[in-house]
Amino acid sequence: MSKINSFAKNLRCPKCGREYEINEIHQLCECGSPLLVSYDLKEAAKQFNKESLKGREKSLWRYRELLPVQDDENIVSLGEGFTPVIPLKKAGEKSGISKLFIKDEGVIPTGTFKARGAAVGVSRAKELGVKVLSMPTNGNAGAAWSIYSARAGLKAVIIMPEDAPSITRNECAAAGADLYLVKGLISDCGKIVARSVKENGWFDASTLKEPYRIEGKKTMGLEIAEQFGWKTPDVILYPTGGGVGIVGIYKALTELKELGFIEGKLPRLVAVQAEGCSPIVKAYNERKNESEFFEDSKTVAFGINVPKALGDFLVLEAIYKTDGCAIAVDDEKILSALKELAQTEGTFVCPEGAAIYAAAKELRKDNWIKEGESVVLLNTGAGIKYPDTLSFDVPYLEKDAVLPLR
Amino acid sequence: MSKINSFAKNLRCPKCGREYEINEIHQLCECGSPLLVSYDLKEAAKQFNKESLKGREKSLWRYRELLPVQDDENIVSLGEGFTPVIPLKKAGEKSGISKLFIKDEGVIPTGTFKARGAAVGVSRAKELGVKVLSMPTNGNAGAAWSIYSARAGLKAVIIMPEDAPSITRNECAAAGADLYLVKGLISDCGKIVARSVKENGWFDASTLKEPYRIEGKKTMGLEIAEQFGWKTPDVILYPTGGGVGIVGIYKALTELKELGFIEGKLPRLVAVQAEGCSPIVKAYNERKNESEFFEDSKTVAFGINVPKALGDFLVLEAIYKTDGCAIAVDDEKILSALKELAQTEGTFVCPEGAAIYAAAKELRKDNWIKEGESVVLLNTGAGIKYPDTLSFDVPYLEKDAVLPLR
Repeated sequence: MSKINSFAKNLRCPKCGREYEINEIHQLCECGSPLLVSYDLKEAAKQFNKESLKGREKSLWRYRELLPVQDDENIVSLGEGFTPVIPLKKAGEKSGISKLFIKDEGVIPTGTFKARGAAVGVSRAKELGVKVLSMPTNGNAGAAWSIYSARAGLKAVIIMPEDAPSITRNECAAAGADLYLVKGLISDCGKIVARSVKENGWFDASTLKEPYRIEGKKTMGLEIAEQFGWKTPDVILYPTGGGVGIVGIYKALTELKELGFIEGKLPRLVAVQAEGCSPIVKAYNERKNESEFFEDSKTVAFGINVPKALGDFLVLEAIYKTDGCAIAVDDEKILSALKELAQTEGTFVCPEGAAIYAAAKELRKDNWIKEGESVVLLNTGAGIKYPDTLSFDVPYLEKDAVLPLR
Repeated sequence: MSKINSFAKNLRCPKCGREYEINEIHQLCECGSPLLVSYDLKEAAKQFNKESLKGREKSLWRYRELLPVQDDENIVSLGEGFTPVIPLKKAGEKSGISKLFIKDEGVIPTGTFKARGAAVGVSRAKELGVKVLSMPTNGNAGAAWSIYSARAGLKAVIIMPEDAPSITRNECAAAGADLYLVKGLISDCGKIVARSVKENGWFDASTLKEPYRIEGKKTMGLEIAEQFGWKTPDVILYPTGGGVGIVGIYKALTELKELGFIEGKLPRLVAVQAEGCSPIVKAYNERKNESEFFEDSKTVAFGINVPKALGDFLVLEAIYKTDGCAIAVDDEKILSALKELAQTEGTFVCPEGAAIYAAAKELRKDNWIKEGESVVLLNTGAGIKYPDTLSFDVPYLEKDAVLPLR
């Protein structure tokens, strides 16, 4: 890859405005808020335009100017990004959304969008000299960070609830991570990580406790804009647990707007949650700027079982600033949407991805999504990572059978 | 997508030379051999060159001239193809292969290379007016054909051994296919399919019993050539069950050579099998042109448990014509290669993909792969589709734990 400059300038606290040096290891702001990467977009605009992208590799690394990695040598890549945007014509007809699309993050290393955060996060950790990182996970993030850490030669210490998808355990362990299980939620795992990183001086790779994962997630927004020919869709639906994805997409769109790549009104961003764990929806309905811990959370969409997100205020800001909304759907609707998408469109999505299709149908029914608007469902992972979400009785045949059976 | 001509001309029997009309449904040749698609490469060469590919979408459909689908309307796509080629620097150092690469077919809809055959095969079936198709499968092909059939609106009748990976069952069933299990091998399933398609007039989508799946697989070869800047690598290793992949890659390379896209000696093609099911290796060692049924076959690499492939003579031809070879590795080496790749490179491959890494190491040791040669491992699928191949004991933590445990 040819050397392209990163225009990352510093780290900035979105709550108190404090700034931090970009080439030092920082976790949270002194005020307790996550830090975000700021770019010198004025300077970037002089050297970077839509034409610059022509002929670049179709991976998230095509947006090097808007990523924090300084030296190409530190890029840890498995070819992630530029996932397909697929028209859903039949599902669109069924749901009354004539311009319906899915961006399929199942088509990426590790099978979920978590690969983006891990690729950029691990690359930066390597660049900053980190040797050991640790994180709590509902499964897929831990798998992705284990995989990319292996490639980078870093040690990953991963703690996940015992109920996390079993495939992700194997990914972590196969990649040589130090993996532990906890009889509890991701929030319980997070507390162990917090104590352990403090004790050992490890890098804390928990959601939004380091500023780079979100830069990887941001590329979903960059790609949507480019894949739609820099004319952004009207609505983007996103399954929201920790919320880094939706915050990243919002960050991408505002940066692109400042750069002059896109114009006009931003897409309305929709945070979709499961009814069994919907702290953001509750906060949105009460027009609050932060959420409260959601007690006894439970949903079939395990990846969005996050009772209180550290970046909740950023998620809500993204929603409010784009005239978006937050909506919850129940598990029954999620499972039925999962089957409907697979049977109608051949898109076998994760339960979180199914939730957003269910939500889109509700929002169209309520006319929040208007006739003729273009709508993107961001499917965060492949259905194959959740083999036990659906179950089927499959009949046996004798070796001398002829179909159809009579 | 703009309209680009397909230069498919007719179907041709590689055994007896009989030709068949391309726009009719044909299965095997009257002589019992598979049929292959012939292209008018002279005419294609006048209108199609390397420059034509610039700016086209990064999917297998960028090679429309060399694919059999006539009308864009019939393309059934989920964004498949142009999978990443990733350098394996550390594994290369370990194994003494300084230019080692993996082409990762895990990064594709359904998580395996079977998506390519299904995308092109189902598109053509739709174009030819097929309503119901049926096939035996070791799992992944059936999953892919179910998924693409759902998208196309075709009925798929899938029969698989009960030992096939359980995730693939769910994919077939979720996509609404008629799925059946058999206590036996894929060859037993194949016999039921043969009887049933005859009884009902269904389209037989079994490996090489229709001529289009291989055209989809062929795109792996087209991509490797393009991704290596039209200077092909010295060696390509491929895990060989039914053998359509290696035959497809050989077909791609010969077509590209005739078109003038590549020059000189073709890459040496290596068919890798498991010791527990190695009919091609046995035939190669005896310098035969066909294989014999391999009795009591058994291997952890389920996808290549094919005791007798219909296209065995084409596989052996591809090997002989390119000065390639066939090699078997045992299950122990496969499992150890799987872990080594994940831990060293972060590439979590399927057991079949692990087999080719194990084979590459053997071939380097024997100096069949020479110092400084460039070697491509074609990993046919994602490790996440085989959650039970590896097992790990994962320790539990109490909620008040601090790491490291003492």
